[in-house]
Order: sequence, then C-alpha cells, then structure tokens
Amino acid sequence: MEMKTIGVLTSGGDAPGMNAAVRAVVRTAIFKGIRVVGIRRGYNGLIDGDIFEMNLRSVSDIIHRGGTVLYTARSPEFKTEEGMQKAVDTCHKEGIDGIVVIGGDGSYRGARDLSLRGIPCVGLPGTIDNDISSTDYTIGFDTAMNTAMEMVDRLRDTTQSHERCSVVEVMGRRAGYLALQTGVAVGATSILVPEVPYDIDRDIVARMRKTQMSGKKHFIVVVAEGVGGVQELAKEIEARTGIESRATILGHVQRGGSPTVRDRVMASQMGHQAVELLSQGIGNRVVCFRGDKILNKDIYEALAEQKEFDFNLYRIAHEISI
Amino acid sequence: MEMKTIGVLTSGGDAPGMNAAVRAVVRTAIFKGIRVVGIRRGYNGLIDGDIFEMNLRSVSDIIHRGGTVLYTARSPEFKTEEGMQKAVDTCHKEGIDGIVVIGGDGSYRGARDLSLRGIPCVGLPGTIDNDISSTDYTIGFDTAMNTAMEMVDRLRDTTQSHERCSVVEVMGRRAGYLALQTGVAVGATSILVPEVPYDIDRDIVARMRKTQMSGKKHFIVVVAEGVGGVQELAKEIEARTGIESRATILGHVQRGGSPTVRDRVMASQMGHQAVELLSQGIGNRVVCFRGDKILNKDIYEALAEQKEFDFNLYRIAHEISI
Amino acid sequence: MEMKTIGVLTSGGDAPGMNAAVRAVVRTAIFKGIRVVGIRRGYNGLIDGDIFEMNLRSVSDIIHRGGTVLYTARSPEFKTEEGMQKAVDTCHKEGIDGIVVIGGDGSYRGARDLSLRGIPCVGLPGTIDNDISSTDYTIGFDTAMNTAMEMVDRLRDTTQSHERCSVVEVMGRRAGYLALQTGVAVGATSILVPEVPYDIDRDIVARMRKTQMSGKKHFIVVVAEGVGGVQELAKEIEARTGIESRATILGHVQRGGSPTVRDRVMASQMGHQAVELLSQGIGNRVVCFRGDKILNKDIYEALAEQKEFDFNLYRIAHEISI
Amino acid sequence: MEMKTIGVLTSGGDAPGMNAAVRAVVRTAIFKGIRVVGIRRGYNGLIDGDIFEMNLRSVSDIIHRGGTVLYTARSPEFKTEEGMQKAVDTCHKEGIDGIVVIGGDGSYRGARDLSLRGIPCVGLPGTIDNDISSTDYTIGFDTAMNTAMEMVDRLRDTTQSHERCSVVEVMGRRAGYLALQTGVAVGATSILVPEVPYDIDRDIVARMRKTQMSGKKHFIVVVAEGVGGVQELAKEIEARTGIESRATILGHVQRGGSPTVRDRVMASQMGHQAVELLSQGIGNRVVCFRGDKILNKDIYEALAEQKEFDFNLYRIAHEISI
Repeated sequence: MEMKTIGVLTSGGDAPGMNAAVRAVVRTAIFKGIRVVGIRRGYNGLIDGDIFEMNLRSVSDIIHRGGTVLYTARSPEFKTEEGMQKAVDTCHKEGIDGIVVIGGDGSYRGARDLSLRGIPCVGLPGTIDNDISSTDYTIGFDTAMNTAMEMVDRLRDTTQSHERCSVVEVMGRRAGYLALQTGVAVGATSILVPEVPYDIDRDIVARMRKTQMSGKKHFIVVVAEGVGGVQELAKEIEARTGIESRATILGHVQRGGSPTVRDRVMASQMGHQAVELLSQGIGNRVVCFRGDKILNKDIYEALAEQKEFDFNLYRIAHEISI
Repeated sequence: MEMKTIGVLTSGGDAPGMNAAVRAVVRTAIFKGIRVVGIRRGYNGLIDGDIFEMNLRSVSDIIHRGGTVLYTARSPEFKTEEGMQKAVDTCHKEGIDGIVVIGGDGSYRGARDLSLRGIPCVGLPGTIDNDISSTDYTIGFDTAMNTAMEMVDRLRDTTQSHERCSVVEVMGRRAGYLALQTGVAVGATSILVPEVPYDIDRDIVARMRKTQMSGKKHFIVVVAEGVGGVQELAKEIEARTGIESRATILGHVQRGGSPTVRDRVMASQMGHQAVELLSQGIGNRVVCFRGDKILNKDIYEALAEQKEFDFNLYRIAHEISI
Repeated sequence: MEMKTIGVLTSGGDAPGMNAAVRAVVRTAIFKGIRVVGIRRGYNGLIDGDIFEMNLRSVSDIIHRGGTVLYTARSPEFKTEEGMQKAVDTCHKEGIDGIVVIGGDGSYRGARDLSLRGIPCVGLPGTIDNDISSTDYTIGFDTAMNTAMEMVDRLRDTTQSHERCSVVEVMGRRAGYLALQTGVAVGATSILVPEVPYDIDRDIVARMRKTQMSGKKHFIVVVAEGVGGVQELAKEIEARTGIESRATILGHVQRGGSPTVRDRVMASQMGHQAVELLSQGIGNRVVCFRGDKILNKDIYEALAEQKEFDFNLYRIAHEISI
Repeated sequence: MEMKTIGVLTSGGDAPGMNAAVRAVVRTAIFKGIRVVGIRRGYNGLIDGDIFEMNLRSVSDIIHRGGTVLYTARSPEFKTEEGMQKAVDTCHKEGIDGIVVIGGDGSYRGARDLSLRGIPCVGLPGTIDNDISSTDYTIGFDTAMNTAMEMVDRLRDTTQSHERCSVVEVMGRRAGYLALQTGVAVGATSILVPEVPYDIDRDIVARMRKTQMSGKKHFIVVVAEGVGGVQELAKEIEARTGIESRATILGHVQRGGSPTVRDRVMASQMGHQAVELLSQGIGNRVVCFRGDKILNKDIYEALAEQKEFDFNLYRIAHEISI
C-alpha cells in the first residue's frame, strides 16, 4: 500500500512538545514526498471533516510553543459505531491513507480501531503524566516536571521565611511519576504517590520530627493528585506537629509552557519515526521510548503492558531527604 | 542623638526583594560607620532577644534570593503592653538606637509605637499586594505580578488548545492592583477586583460573546483573591455560555522567587534612604515611592492615607481586550 | 480632520512589548470605529505598499510574544526626498489618514517629516536601551534589564564556584541605563557607563581589594556596550589583581523574550494614547512617560530634549556593593 | 576495609547539579553512619588540608542552586608526585578512608591515582558538555542545554523581526552533544559540530535557499565551540546569501543557573550510588548512566572508552529543519 496522504491529530489532554511532534510529522512526510493534512480537535475533526492542507511553513516557529496548534478535545462520538464510520468516510473522501495520533492510552484505542477499519494509524505518547504503560517517556513529562519544580522552588522561599510546612499537590491522577521526580528534585521531606500507601505518622510526622532535630524548620510535602486531600492533610500535619502548614494545588499551570529540550527532541524523533512507519504502510503501532531507544510496538500489546513504579528512586528519596 | 547601632527586621508576609532591602540597610550603615544587628522573625526577635551582629559579608549573595534571610512572623505578643516593653528592654540591653522595619501597614504600626517609646524606627514597604496606602510601589509587587503573569501565560497554552475559559485567582485580599496589572498583561477578557462591583452578564458573559463573534474561542478571566469564588464563577460561566470553564488558584507560589530588577533596585534605594534617615536621628518615618521619587513621610500620616485604584487603566483594559 | 483609517508600523531595533503596543493600537482604533492597516518592515512597507488590513483577531495572542509581528527594518530610502514622496503617495492611495510609529529617535524624525507632509503621525518609544531623551521609560527596557540580570545571575554561579571576576558587557551603545540598573540588581562591584569616565585602579581594582579584605572572593563588573573593551579589561584586571577574570558579551539575547508585565502594560497604555491623539486629528506628537504619567509632546520638542543619568543611583550602587 | 570517614570534592569546570550530588553523598553517608568531610577547591583542598566536617544541615537548601558550594579549581600541583603525596598525607592525617570526586575525565585520572595509593575513590560525571566517554549522561548537561535553548529562543524573536540569520556558538570544545540537542530543539537550519566536517555551501547556504523558497526569511545556525569562527561564518553567510547575518557567543552563562529536574534527580541517584560503593570498600570506580540504568565501572576502563555521536539524530535534524 502506497501512502500518498497522511493526516495528523492531537487528542486528549494537551502537552508541551505536541507542536514539536506535529512539526516533525509534517516535515518528515514532505521530505519523503508524502502529502500531509492537519485534523483539528482530535477525532472530532475526523468526524466533522475539519481538515486542512499542511506545508513546510504550516509548522514554522511552533517548536517552542506549548499547547497544540491542531487543538485537542475528547470525542465521545468517536467511540460510537456511527462516529467511527463517519471518521472512516472522511478519510476516504479526503484521501487520507494513514494517520499519526498524538495522545494517551485513550487515543491509542481510537488509533487501533481505525487501523482495524483499514486506516493505518501510528500512536505517539503525549501526556504530561507519563502514565502510558508502553513507554518509559511521554512527550510533555519533562516540561511538566520542571514547571512543577520551579513552582515548588518559589514556594520554598516563603515556606523557609515563615518556617512552615508546604503541602503541594502536583498532577498525576493515576500515577505518581510526576510527584516522585518533582519530590526528589525539590528535596521534599515526604512524597505521597498512589502506588505506595502511606501512614501520616510514620511517613510524614516522624520524618519532620527527625529533620527538625537536626535543625531544619521548614518542610515540603509533595502529593500526587491521585492521592489528593492536601487541604485536610495540611490541617492534620499542623495538628500533629504544631508547625504551621499550608496546602497548594499547582493545577493546570503544569500543562503549559514552552517545552524543554528533552520534550522537543523526543517529540521530533518520535514524529519522525511515526512517518517512517506509515511511509512503509505499517499501521496499528505505537512509538515508544525504552532504555535509550525509540522503538515501536503493536497497539494491542502496548495497551496490555504494565509499567513499573521506580521504587528504587522512591527509597533513595527517603534516605537523602532528612 | 547619635546612632551607634541600628537593627533591621522583616515582618508580616514575606516578599521578594526583602533581602535586597536588608542588604542595602546593612551595607549603607557600615558605609556610614554604624554597627548593624539583625533581628530574627520580626518583632518576635526583639521580644526574645534573637539578635545577631551583621557585617558586609552577612548579606553577600542574597540580593537575588526570594524570601527573607531574617525570617518573618506575625507577633501577637508585640501588640500587648508587656510585649512592647520587652522589645524596648531588648533595644536598651543590646544598645539598639534605631530600627529599620520592612513590612506592611501592620508592621508600620509597631514601628510607630516603638518610635513613641524612644526607639526611632523607619518603615519600608514590603508586600507583594502593593496595598500600602502611603506608597505607589511596594517591594515584591513587580516580582509577584510577573510570576502571576508567567503562570497565566502557561495556562493560556492549555486554554487555547482546548478552547476553554480559564478563571484565575491571583493574590490581593484587600486590593486589586495585582489582578489589574496581571489582567492587562495577559490580555484577560475580564478582570474582577474588589474596588469595582461586577455583573456576570455584563462584565463577563457579554464580553465573551462579543469576542467569540470575532472568532476567538478561548478566554481568560482574572479575579482578585478579595473577590474570590472562582470555582463557582467558572461553573456559572460554563452554565451561561456553554464554554468549558476551569478555575485555578495561583496561591502562595506568587510570594516567592528571585526578585526582578525593579524590586531589587527599589529595595536598594529604599534601604539606603532608611539608613540615611536613622543616621540623622530621624525616626517615626516611612519610606515611600511617589511619582518617580523615593520620599519619606511621618508614620501617622502614612497610615491615614488613602490610595486610589487606577480606574483609567481598568477602562483601557476593557477597551483593548476583546 | 476625520480619521477613517490609521496605519501602524514598527521601526528600528525590535523590542519586547512592541507587539503589545501594536495590539493596543489596533484594538483601540477598532473600539473607536477607525479602520486599521498594518505596515510591514517599518518605513519600507510604506514605500513599497506592503500594507494589510488588520482586525481584532490580527492581534490575538501576541501580547506575550517578543519581537514584532509587523517586522522591522531600517530604511535609508525613506530618508531621501524620493522615498518620502513614495511613502506619502502610498498613504494617499491606501487612504491612510494617520500613522502610529513605534521606534526610537530615528523613527521619530521620520514621523515628524511625514507629519509635515500632511500625514499626522504619533511616535511611541520602543527600544531596549531606554535612550530616548523625551521619556523616562521606553517599551522593552524592563524586559531587557531582567534578561540581562538573569544571565548575570547564572554567571554568578560559575564566578562564585571558581572564585573569579566576571566582566560582563550589557547593551547600551550611547547610554548606561541598562548597565546601571542591571549592575545594581546583581550587586556588581563596579559599573562602567558612558556617562561617567572611569579609572581602573580607583573604580575597579581598589574596590575589589576592599571587598576581598572583608572575605569575598568573586566579583562582577558590569560594563555598558558604549564603554566596551571587556576582553582587554578582563585581562587588565587579572594582571593587576591576580584574580582570574573572564569577559562575557551578553549580546542580542537581550533584545528578545516574552515581555514583562511592565512592558506589556506600558505598551498597552501608550498604544491607547497614540490612537486617542490621532482620533482627534492630532499628529506630530510622541507619547512619553514622565514621573508616573503617560503624556505626549511635540516631536520637535521631544527630539531636542536632554535626558539625565541617575547619578544618585550610581552613587548608592557604589556605597552598597562592597 | 571499613569506611569511617569519606570526603567529597568537586573538580574541573562547575556544572549545575553538582550541589545536588554533594547533598546526596553527604546524606547517604550519614544515613549509613559514615562521617563526611567536605574538601574545598578540588584536589587543592586535599593538598592544602582545606577540609571541613559536614552534617545533614550543611547541604540544606542547596539542591536548587547552580555552581558548587565546595568551590572548584584545576590543580596542576596535584599532577606532580609531590602534590599527590601531600594529598595522601592529608587523607591519613584527617582519617579520610575514601573520596567521592565529582568532575570530568581529568578529575577521574586523579581519582584513579589516589585509588592506586590506597585511598579508594569513586568518580561522578559532572560537566555541562556531556563529553565523558564512559557515560551517556553527565550532571549539568540537561540544564546547560535548556539554558542554551532559552537563549536561542530569545534570539529567535529578534532574528525573526529583522528577517536575519543568527549564527550562535554554544559550548562544547571537544564535542557537539550540546550543539546537536540545542540545534534540534530550536529547529536550527544548520548544526555544525566537531564530529562532522561541513561545507558552507552544501550545509548552510543551500539549506537556507531551499528554506527561503518555501517562504521563510529568518534562520538560525547553531555552531559548537569546537568548530568556532562564528564571526567569520556570519560574514561569509551574509556575503553568499545577501541575508543579514549576526554572530552570538552564548558563553559562560550556559554553565550556571538552577539545575533542571533531570540534573537534580540524576545527581541524587549518582551521589547515592557512589557512597554505596565506598561503603563496601570499593574504589577506583566511576558511576555512569547507560541506557536507562545507573551503573559503575572501573576507572581504567572508563577512561579508555569511546563515545559515539548520535548521527541518527543529526540526520533527522536535517530532514525536519527546512
């Protein structure tokens, strides 16, 4: 099967680096003599035919921009048989021979279903949470970690000046990757993640007391969104330790901003590989990062994988943050 | 009266630039041959005698640090006659002839009371809210505005990618200065401040509709802490416009971070002037910024002043943010 | 004279905040029912007829962008009688009744000449150097200062770790405003500006020795571009003090970046005022900032003014940076 | 052999994340009941006996600071037999049983020589250039890349506004890793590295022309320090293309700044592993990062390794940056 035209879309939550991935897809395709169209608002654009021709200059000066120039949205309609059929019809009508889908596991399921219906799709991992099981790294994760870290570094100033405890919620509904990395990077006294149950006395209060005995009077506790309850936790810590405690939820600010080098380079490489696959007529694959290599695998297998939490880093964090 | 020794303390909420002010106080005093002592944790340090000798190197490499190396705290005890007496006793015991107090209106009242009891004090305006009536500018305001703006710039990426409305609460319990400046700087569709009552339909919904008609699909609404209620407001906006709306509270992150040029330079000039005054035996004054000049005035007068909200800028914001 | 259509252009070196000014011009004009056209590449666009219609959305999401969406260039042809006549012809042909010119003194002269030929022009001060005599503040100055400061803050880390002296050149060919503010903000041991002659022994070496005696071992010397010679100066300092010295030229990086709050707000207010003037048929004026007010004045007078260097701040810097 | 006391030093050029590594070494040692001393100014401190006791609080609030709190310096004396002997004597006198050396290949050779003389040493890779052959990653590299990228992003604004070509020199005397990553991240039209000879017409001019034909008018060329000659190159590009070209040398600014998440986390893990090794009496090793694992290897072997340039990424860069 020859690829004459490929489409590209971003789906699910936006992540810094998505634009760099779109740029790499467009440029690699054109380099290979393949026509590219942009699909707006994720799978909705495929259903509604919201599609436009892209050229080298469509992706100029976007590599450093957060968000996604293709817009993104969730698409409940795409999960229905009718929506899926409309999408397939659009592909036929527009002559789209294959699609690069940038998003998370939910987006991958759509890519798999489209592939099954004869439109080869390749998925790229794009989410700030790094919670895609088939890859060690997702586009947007590095930027989000650094944004969270910089925000906690600012909090540190006021926490230290007032000799308080700051309880900070970072993103990560299902996974503690962002909380763990951020927590290590800011030297948090305690890090709470969904993967590890915690005991407030053992894991927070006792650690604060031990640290206090060595002369330190301010504390940072990093909590993953999936653990939650930071307002109550701050009150509880204050009640048990007598140290004034304040909760902060970093929120959506973590999703935005200009991507870091790592996100831009990773997105460029992944976007390139996605087109390499499609140009050979290969679909139903996801691009992933394992070890230090960019690989690809079958979407079915990808969706079935389990990802391990880095318990070793978690243990190191506890040893060195007293 | 000859000043042999002066003390310096930071009081109330911390603000970026306080360290630059402390540095200027210490260095100017030493330049003039005056001994300087640091007083820790605001007026508490004066009550408890938590005082230490400072030299040129005590303030090395702090000009760029957020927070305050002297720590800060509120001091309910200082408001009692007994606490005040302890503070005066400490001054006599330690040979402190005058004090520079860096903080807000509450701290100024303490400075006035100490001055009345024979310890000349000079107040410096330090608060991120810019809500000190006697001055156009307070140390920390510029940094806080820029921090808030950068955070909203990040939110803009995700707001735009998802075509949402972001309702963002910035600091400012009593005043909308921070909200107004931030709102203008991010091009907010609407800015809500305590100084101006608002009507959700006229001031938000109608403006969003008008903007929408010209082709824009994402919106930012900046709300001062003193107006509050951003969660409910986001729900209400979504209900009335059908546009997905999300609330974000920027929180204490706005208090920290390395100070901007303006905060460092202003703090340096103000700290310098405070010591100029004390070195001439002049107390019961506050340093302030009016027009483009650093001046000083009587604390009583300073506390009695009223500050005007910049309604002209507020009006401009509404004309150009459609 | 009724203004039906106004044009806007950016001229000379670009500066962060120019986009915010363009946005304010466009939006204010449309708010007043005036048509706006963009003129590309400064006066060249006027000569070549490189002009396009602008609407509310032409300036969406540019307030936070550095550079200028209208592009900028110097225009030698515009200084000739022939070029000037072409520009006037374009205005007549395109129905341009008045122009907002954003740039420096050179751009003001063009605005004056056009005004004389019946096209009322209003100048806005846009340059990172703050070297426009008629105004206390120029759009871009605050951003450039903060960029320079952040870069020197980074240099400080390595200067301190290696116990060196860093000699840093910041922009400012004709004026030391940027060097002075940056120097105070980073706590430079010495600040060299074109406005003040210096003696290497008295103003650098002696100050370093004095500082060294109090225990400090790293030094920063900030030098304005107009003083220059940082490579040689670094060698000379090393020869005279025995302290390893390194020169760094910050360069064009200082011109770019997302504008600060102050630049965005100032540009918004100035752009608004420029259209207020033109809408009343008033030309041959420049908008300026004096004290704490945005004012306007005759271009002839503006070009004839002299601006004073802040010798008081320069003196304070020397007292507190030991 | 039981480790009662270990020392830690930083050597060679400073790098962001060195403080995070020192912190991890100190905290891990104390966690294991081992005493730790800090050695100032690299191997010089060992020769001069400039050594101090460290505790949990010696490394508080340094994880986010650039530079190194232990200072660093090159030590020609240490390379002599006499200097080496003095260092060994200091270890015996101070009871230092093992040392963690943070630095580059030069520092590793010192660590090897000390190990040979009975003082077990473990090397940690710390340099912004990533030019240590035995490891895929060096502490400081990620921060330096991001600093360089942010600076070029600022240059992009002015490059674009003036439709110029910017020729930017980034650090890397012997290796193009930093230039390659930065170049990909900023979407540079051409990237010049010491590993790949270049032809100005084929690799720069022809690429600029091709890009120009598609409508782009501004260009960024990233050049590694080891290639050099950016001033001449800019002139040559301007002569051959007619496009105004400017050279910028980013310089030492790239060495400083608060470390990124990656540098802080990597440094924490590596510092932890170094103490794990020493605590088992194992010396003459370096810690390294390979694939996605932190490993360690013999210093002799480490120094003999060759590192490959990522030609694949280099190729991708050329395909997608037109």
